[in-house]
Amino acid sequence: MADQPSKEQVYFLGVDGGGTKCRAVLVGANQAVLGTGEGGPSNPYHGVARAMESISNAIQHALKDAGLAPEDTHRLVVGLGLAGVNVPSVFKTVEQWDFPYLATYLTTDLHIACIGAHESADGAVMVAGTGSCGFAHVNGESLIVGAHGFPCGDKGSGAWLGLSAVQAVLLADDTLGPSTILTELICEQLQARNGIMIVERLSGAKQSDYARLAPLVFHAAQSGDAVATAILKEGAEYLDNVARKLWARNPGRMAMIGGVAHKMTEWMDADLVTRLSAPLQQPEYGAVLFAQNAYAQQQRTAKEA
Amino acid sequence: MADQPSKEQVYFLGVDGGGTKCRAVLVGANQAVLGTGEGGPSNPYHGVARAMESISNAIQHALKDAGLAPEDTHRLVVGLGLAGVNVPSVFKTVEQWDFPYLATYLTTDLHIACIGAHESADGAVMVAGTGSCGFAHVNGESLIVGAHGFPCGDKGSGAWLGLSAVQAVLLADDTLGPSTILTELICEQLQARNGIMIVERLSGAKQSDYARLAPLVFHAAQSGDAVATAILKEGAEYLDNVARKLWARNPGRMAMIGGVAHKMTEWMDADLVTRLSAPLQQPEYGAVLFAQNAYAQQQRTAKEA
Repeated sequence: MADQPSKEQVYFLGVDGGGTKCRAVLVGANQAVLGTGEGGPSNPYHGVARAMESISNAIQHALKDAGLAPEDTHRLVVGLGLAGVNVPSVFKTVEQWDFPYLATYLTTDLHIACIGAHESADGAVMVAGTGSCGFAHVNGESLIVGAHGFPCGDKGSGAWLGLSAVQAVLLADDTLGPSTILTELICEQLQARNGIMIVERLSGAKQSDYARLAPLVFHAAQSGDAVATAILKEGAEYLDNVARKLWARNPGRMAMIGGVAHKMTEWMDADLVTRLSAPLQQPEYGAVLFAQNAYAQQQRTAKEA
Repeated sequence: MADQPSKEQVYFLGVDGGGTKCRAVLVGANQAVLGTGEGGPSNPYHGVARAMESISNAIQHALKDAGLAPEDTHRLVVGLGLAGVNVPSVFKTVEQWDFPYLATYLTTDLHIACIGAHESADGAVMVAGTGSCGFAHVNGESLIVGAHGFPCGDKGSGAWLGLSAVQAVLLADDTLGPSTILTELICEQLQARNGIMIVERLSGAKQSDYARLAPLVFHAAQSGDAVATAILKEGAEYLDNVARKLWARNPGRMAMIGGVAHKMTEWMDADLVTRLSAPLQQPEYGAVLFAQNAYAQQQRTAKEA
C-alpha cells in the first residue's frame, strides 16, 4: 500500500507567472510530472486580483490534468515564481493573499527560472519575454538587473519592441519619421487604416498587448526594414549589457529564456550568445524545486522546535 | 427689464479638458466672465467616466463662482474641448454621454485652443502640456499632428519628459546608463531610496503622474546634467518638426500653449520660437466661442426649418 496516497500525502506544484500568462506543473513523490495547466496574465504589479485569478485557474487546470479532485487543493505545496514581486510592496500584498493551499512559497519569476535552468546550482538567467531582466545567483547572493516593468524599463522585451514599433509607425504617419513596412504590418494586425485608428485600437493596451506586436518587428527587420532593425539593435544592445553585468558575477552557467529570447539572440553580441547554455529545466519546474526545498526546510525547523 | 434674465436666458460655458486637469469658464450675454472652475484629469481616452466627472465638477464650480444655482445647469450651452476625442470611438462615446445641459458641443482641445489663440481666425497651435500635439486651421481645413497620447506618442510633453527621466534613472540604477543628478531629484520627489522603490511608487502611474516629474528634467538640465539635456533636446527637436509641419500650411499666426510650453521653447529652434505669437485668449474661452458659434448655427437652422 506504499504507493497509495496516504492521508498525509502532499503534492508539489510550481507556478511560473509572467505578464502574458502563467504555467503550473504538478509533480508526484518521485518527481514525475502528473499534470500541467495554464492561466492568463499574472504579473501582480499590473493588478493583484487578476494575477491571483490567473494563477488559481492554472493550478485548477493542473489538478484536473493530474486526475486529482478540486478538494485536493489543500494537499498542494505551491511554489510561486512571479514577475513583479521584486517590488517589495507587491511581494507583501501577494504574500498576504489568502491561498487555499497546504503551503505557499513566494519568490520572483527570475529566481525560479534560475533554479530551473541550473537545477538549483549557481548560475544566471536572462529573460526576454513580455518583459526583460537578468538574474544571477552565486555563493548565496542574488543580483537582479532590470525587472523595472513596463513602460519604465524592460528594454529588449516583447512589450518594448511592440511599443517602439507603434511609436515609429505613428511618427511615420505624421511624416515626421521614416516610412517603414512596420506601418502595413501593424495596421493589418490591429485592423487599423491609419495612425489614429492604431491609437484607438491600443486604448487601454497593456504590456501583453504591446508584446503581441513584437513578432512584426522581427518580420519587418528580416525584410530589411531600417526602423525595425534599429529597434532590434537598441534592444539587443541593452540585453548584451545585462549579460555582461551578470557574467561579472562569475555565475558559471547562463541561460536565456522567454518568448522573444531566441529571436533576440540573433541581434545580440555573438560572443555573449555562444556562452549561453540551454536551461536544464523550465521555470515552472524551478518553482517546484523551490517549493520542495522551502517545505523541507520548514519541516526540519518544525521538528527541531 | 431688458437686462433682467428672462426665462429663456442661456449662459455659455467653455471647458478645456486635458490629461491633468480641466478648466471651465462661464460668460454672460455681453461676453463678460461670470465665473470659472477647475476639475481633475479629463482625457476620456484614459477613462471616460473619470473625465466626465472632472468636467462636471469644473462646471459646477464655475456655476457657483458665478453665483448661479445648481438648477441653472439646464440653462448652460456648453462647449467641450477635450484631449483624446481626436480618436473617433472616444468622440462617439463622449458625444453620446447624457449631459444635463441645454446644449453640448464637442470638439478637440486642439480646436478650441486654436479658436481661442486666434479669436476664431485661421491659425495654428502647438501644445506642450501633459501631452503634446499640433493643430492648424486654414481655409476651413484642419490638420492634426501628433495627439497620439501616452505612451505611444506625445514626445516633448510633460509626461514624456517624466517617463524618459525615470527610464534614464533606472538604467543608471543598474549602472547600465550614465549617472545623473536626475536620480537624486526623482528619488527625493517620489520619496524613494533606489530604483525598485521608484518602480514601486510609480505602480499604476498615469500620464499626469509622469508629467509631475517634468520640472525635475528642466531643473537638472539647468545644472548641466547631460542626460536631462539630451532628453530635452530630443523632445524639442520633435516639437520643432511639428512646428515646421504646421507652418507649411501657412496658418499666418502660431501660438504655443501648455504647462511645459514656455520651458520647452528654450530648447527649440530659435527661428521657430521668434515666429510664435501670444495666444489672444485661453483655450477655455475658445470653447465658449465654439459653443456660441455652434448654438447660433443651430438656432438659425431651426428657424429656417
